[in-house]
Amino acid sequence: MGEISSQTKNKVEVCFSPTLFPIYFDNRNCIVVVIDVLRATTAICAAFEDGVAAVIPVATIEEATEYKQKGYVVGAERNAEVIDGFDFGNSPLTFQKGKYKDQTIVLTTTNGTQAIDVAKNAQQVIIGSFYNLDAVCDFIEKEDKDVLLLCAGWKERFNLEDTLFAGAVVEKLAENIRFHDLADSAIAALNLYENAKGNLYQFLGESSHRKRLSNLNLEEDIVCCLTLNQSKLVPILKGNKLEVHKIESPLSAVS
Amino acid sequence: MGEISSQTKNKVEVCFSPTLFPIYFDNRNCIVVVIDVLRATTAICAAFEDGVAAVIPVATIEEATEYKQKGYVVGAERNAEVIDGFDFGNSPLTFQKGKYKDQTIVLTTTNGTQAIDVAKNAQQVIIGSFYNLDAVCDFIEKEDKDVLLLCAGWKERFNLEDTLFAGAVVEKLAENIRFHDLADSAIAALNLYENAKGNLYQFLGESSHRKRLSNLNLEEDIVCCLTLNQSKLVPILKGNKLEVHKIESPLSAVS
Repeated sequence: MGEISSQTKNKVEVCFSPTLFPIYFDNRNCIVVVIDVLRATTAICAAFEDGVAAVIPVATIEEATEYKQKGYVVGAERNAEVIDGFDFGNSPLTFQKGKYKDQTIVLTTTNGTQAIDVAKNAQQVIIGSFYNLDAVCDFIEKEDKDVLLLCAGWKERFNLEDTLFAGAVVEKLAENIRFHDLADSAIAALNLYENAKGNLYQFLGESSHRKRLSNLNLEEDIVCCLTLNQSKLVPILKGNKLEVHKIESPLSAVS
Repeated sequence: MGEISSQTKNKVEVCFSPTLFPIYFDNRNCIVVVIDVLRATTAICAAFEDGVAAVIPVATIEEATEYKQKGYVVGAERNAEVIDGFDFGNSPLTFQKGKYKDQTIVLTTTNGTQAIDVAKNAQQVIIGSFYNLDAVCDFIEKEDKDVLLLCAGWKERFNLEDTLFAGAVVEKLAENIRFHDLADSAIAALNLYENAKGNLYQFLGESSHRKRLSNLNLEEDIVCCLTLNQSKLVPILKGNKLEVHKIESPLSAVS
């Protein structure tokens, strides 16, 4: 088949802050992957893996409170801590033993659910984390479109852990020549991931959010968030809800 | 003397897009280093090295035109090309043999002068490029304050070359324990620079702006922009003008 022309390659780009999203979002037809590794998007993936029916992400505590008053199970986190009066925060370890199986839960977090809100008008918005890395890459490869990896960051600032996950996605996609049109941001994320992948935990040792979580005794959460491929499910935004992408291949079915 | 406490360390942070500047600029007393390696800040450094008295950076072509009508020498570049009717663009090679010696020149560019405009209310704004890397680091060390490295990027997007220069500054500063409070963005820039420094030119081979300039036969400009320490001068913003920081040490005097 030989080389394919650059026009037919899908562009892979990373947006390092939700504030920059309108600048990067110039391709209406791209897939947006929302990334908040520590911990919102990991928690969302863990919730689906543990059997929730849907997750309604909301940007504000006010919206979360309204859902709570309507009787929903609601998680709410700000600055890495659970907000009083809600059912949980953004720890992925909340979701075990089918705790909220078949329920629709609501979630608001410091960064991740804001990033989902920013991206909500994109044609396709999916949720990525190390927890479902390969599934996210498989989804993107099947769709065969441009990709925008949206890092939630920390309060609109760049953060390392989301960038490393973006780099992990770039590394996988770049195995396929159709995804060889890497923006500078994708080259940077890829380089950082290549430096870090031998020991993500150690590489993130000096990162600001790992220190923040360590100070709150959340080491177990961090280990969970940095463990690859615990789920083959890809949460996808449909209207105001995240639902699970139905996997077609039996190989990708969850056991 | 022993360890110094984290409170007394200066924070080193990198802002990857002028759009994010208001988010990062929470410390009124920091030094802002404006970076547009290819090519605006390199050209500004080259202009001072070649003897200009001052550079007035302006954000818009309208402002540049007004200065032109008043009789100033004015450079204007958009999308890597000189705008018709102006004296030059943003090539550092413009400034040779004292061409504009002792004159005050005006400059508007696609990214760099916009970034200076965004930062203009900071207490100290200096101009950095590989052309004056060590001088910039010496200046920062003497000031002994928090540092915000502002990458001009490309039309508000992240770019590699400005990030690499930020990483070079972080590497130098981190030799001094007073600059060990590195934000995630500074850790990322440092890592990328460590990957790239053996051959900046090659590392940038796939970057979008190097490709853009190569297509315009600007290889000689790129080589100039990636050559370290051609000047010991640090342009500093005073009012609406950039002037040269007077070096105190005779060792730092320009020959």
